[in-house]
Amino acid sequence: MEKLIVKLGSKSYPISIASGLLNSKNIYSPLKSGEYTMIVTNKDIHHLYAKIIKSTLIQMGVKVDEIILPNGEQYKTLDVVNIIFTALLRKNHPRSTTLIALGGGVIGDLTGFAASCYKRGVRFIQIPTSLLSQIDSSIGGKTALNHPLGKNMIGTFYQPISVIIDLNSLKTLPSRQFFSGIAEIIKYGIILDYNFFCWIEKNINYILHCDEKIITYCIRHCCELKAKIIAKDEKETNGERILLNLGHTFGHAIETELGYGFWLHGEAVSAGIVMAAKTAELIGLLNFNDTERIVNLFKKAHLPTKGPAKMHAKDYLAHMIRDKKTEKNKFNLVLPSSIGKAGFYTDINKKIVLQAINQCLL
Amino acid sequence: MEKLIVKLGSKSYPISIASGLLNSKNIYSPLKSGEYTMIVTNKDIHHLYAKIIKSTLIQMGVKVDEIILPNGEQYKTLDVVNIIFTALLRKNHPRSTTLIALGGGVIGDLTGFAASCYKRGVRFIQIPTSLLSQIDSSIGGKTALNHPLGKNMIGTFYQPISVIIDLNSLKTLPSRQFFSGIAEIIKYGIILDYNFFCWIEKNINYILHCDEKIITYCIRHCCELKAKIIAKDEKETNGERILLNLGHTFGHAIETELGYGFWLHGEAVSAGIVMAAKTAELIGLLNFNDTERIVNLFKKAHLPTKGPAKMHAKDYLAHMIRDKKTEKNKFNLVLPSSIGKAGFYTDINKKIVLQAINQCLL
Repeated sequence: MEKLIVKLGSKSYPISIASGLLNSKNIYSPLKSGEYTMIVTNKDIHHLYAKIIKSTLIQMGVKVDEIILPNGEQYKTLDVVNIIFTALLRKNHPRSTTLIALGGGVIGDLTGFAASCYKRGVRFIQIPTSLLSQIDSSIGGKTALNHPLGKNMIGTFYQPISVIIDLNSLKTLPSRQFFSGIAEIIKYGIILDYNFFCWIEKNINYILHCDEKIITYCIRHCCELKAKIIAKDEKETNGERILLNLGHTFGHAIETELGYGFWLHGEAVSAGIVMAAKTAELIGLLNFNDTERIVNLFKKAHLPTKGPAKMHAKDYLAHMIRDKKTEKNKFNLVLPSSIGKAGFYTDINKKIVLQAINQCLL
Repeated sequence: MEKLIVKLGSKSYPISIASGLLNSKNIYSPLKSGEYTMIVTNKDIHHLYAKIIKSTLIQMGVKVDEIILPNGEQYKTLDVVNIIFTALLRKNHPRSTTLIALGGGVIGDLTGFAASCYKRGVRFIQIPTSLLSQIDSSIGGKTALNHPLGKNMIGTFYQPISVIIDLNSLKTLPSRQFFSGIAEIIKYGIILDYNFFCWIEKNINYILHCDEKIITYCIRHCCELKAKIIAKDEKETNGERILLNLGHTFGHAIETELGYGFWLHGEAVSAGIVMAAKTAELIGLLNFNDTERIVNLFKKAHLPTKGPAKMHAKDYLAHMIRDKKTEKNKFNLVLPSSIGKAGFYTDINKKIVLQAINQCLL
């Protein structure tokens, strides 16, 4: 088993990575006999993994309740969080309870948010089952809900007590969701690690076929990169963590405009990173060859490099102006300056942004 | 002007107390020209104070929006918080915005919660206008929403950047609300400060008539007591802050059972403290004379010392078992051991609790 630690003082927590972890009692430490837990999951995931987790916890003497939510980004709302609160209160869950997020990014974001607010904060464990949540969203304590006017506009910073990554779950992941996760893997290479980007280029076919050795290295390396950033900049205040948002300002515009769940998050981020690269190219920050390498790698990963057909360039702007990084109606964007290096650039000319988007329309 | 500091390291903030503060620009520091603010208030308070705050902020070059919410405890819900989020997003409020809670405890709890979750946390200022919020709920960073199954069951710990107490607002406060605030003043005497309890007994008539000198001392002293506790135990983890919940387990049962807003919070706390005192008396912790002094002081403050006519003793228990202090279906209560001293007692016999409530029914 691979074990990493996210170092955050008294809030530090382990990330455990291996195949077939879910029936191991040790993995659920520090849960103890007599304590309450609530597994939060959706119906697709429930029938695959809930049983084994439940039976292991019950053997430990832990009380287990479960709640099965509808599946999809469109359910990441205040109303659905309220369903979690109601379930917890109906079963009299105390302040010492632990929520267990079993699923992809949507389940993780919803459960983390519920944990941060139920009785002013209870513990939660992340068991991410999608590639995207394993290498990105389950780590770092960003919880989020969508609002009709913007993705992830409601949320908290609230760290889990443990992240448990069972690689077996990738075997049952639909391929479209698997490819979506690769978008965030490529993102790490672009913003932080030239050598890793080259490694992905070389191994993309093994990644696409989910070769066990290759995907294990890949997940561990992404988790390491993210854990380091979180340790230095937990709440996105000193300029490091913000780099992880590369492509997300454009991507969130796509997700919000089309309706949540229509494009997967990684698909929107893929097209969004290409738009960010084009913006960087237009202002003379990134050279054409690097943009091409980025575009080609996304294409090889079966990911979109153009925005959806229905959207015009101006459709993006209204959403982008509400982005969390926007101040005073100015376009502030994370942009790559080369492969392996990115920065946060403020007050970018609106015409340039429009031009970049226009170059990425079908 | 009286000024206290709530000492919480990088999260420290001032409490300013005086009459006629709201048109002073200095009081709104650190707000700066060009920044966004959103005043969150209700219609009763809006027409009294919003204009003066708005005009002062506009003179400072600060952008001001406002949102007027319905008035009452029954509106302290997720749905109403969502109204705040929508207003902020419609006006493109950035992460550097500041929410201004202008009103009583309900407005403060709602606004604090919204501030803790909007774009994962923005600044907020408390301008409490009721006695109860001035001496208690505006200080300490507990934010809260009600759920049909329990009062304050959803919330966060999130500190304001400033608390501004304008004593003039008490002049327009309805007397029932004013008396409700006195319940929490008396609570401080019972749990922490025998001399203050005696001082309240001696000065109760001046307090009831809102004598300026007396009420100013009273508010400052309560703020000092609370600020000290918060500095030592921000998140209710080491046994100090929990004492502030005296009477609240019983009181919340009353508020939830009757429907939020039917009894005021201070009224429910008054009857709840008497129930706690009776419980303490029944287990031999508190002597009969002290209980009588407590009961008499609440009576003089026009506060209830019996539960509402409609409720039977067993009606309390279902609510009390969901209390945030409850673990493993056991009754854990803050109880006074004498006037000026209280403790947190676990696993109190259910029959004793029922007997105590029965002694406090009409």
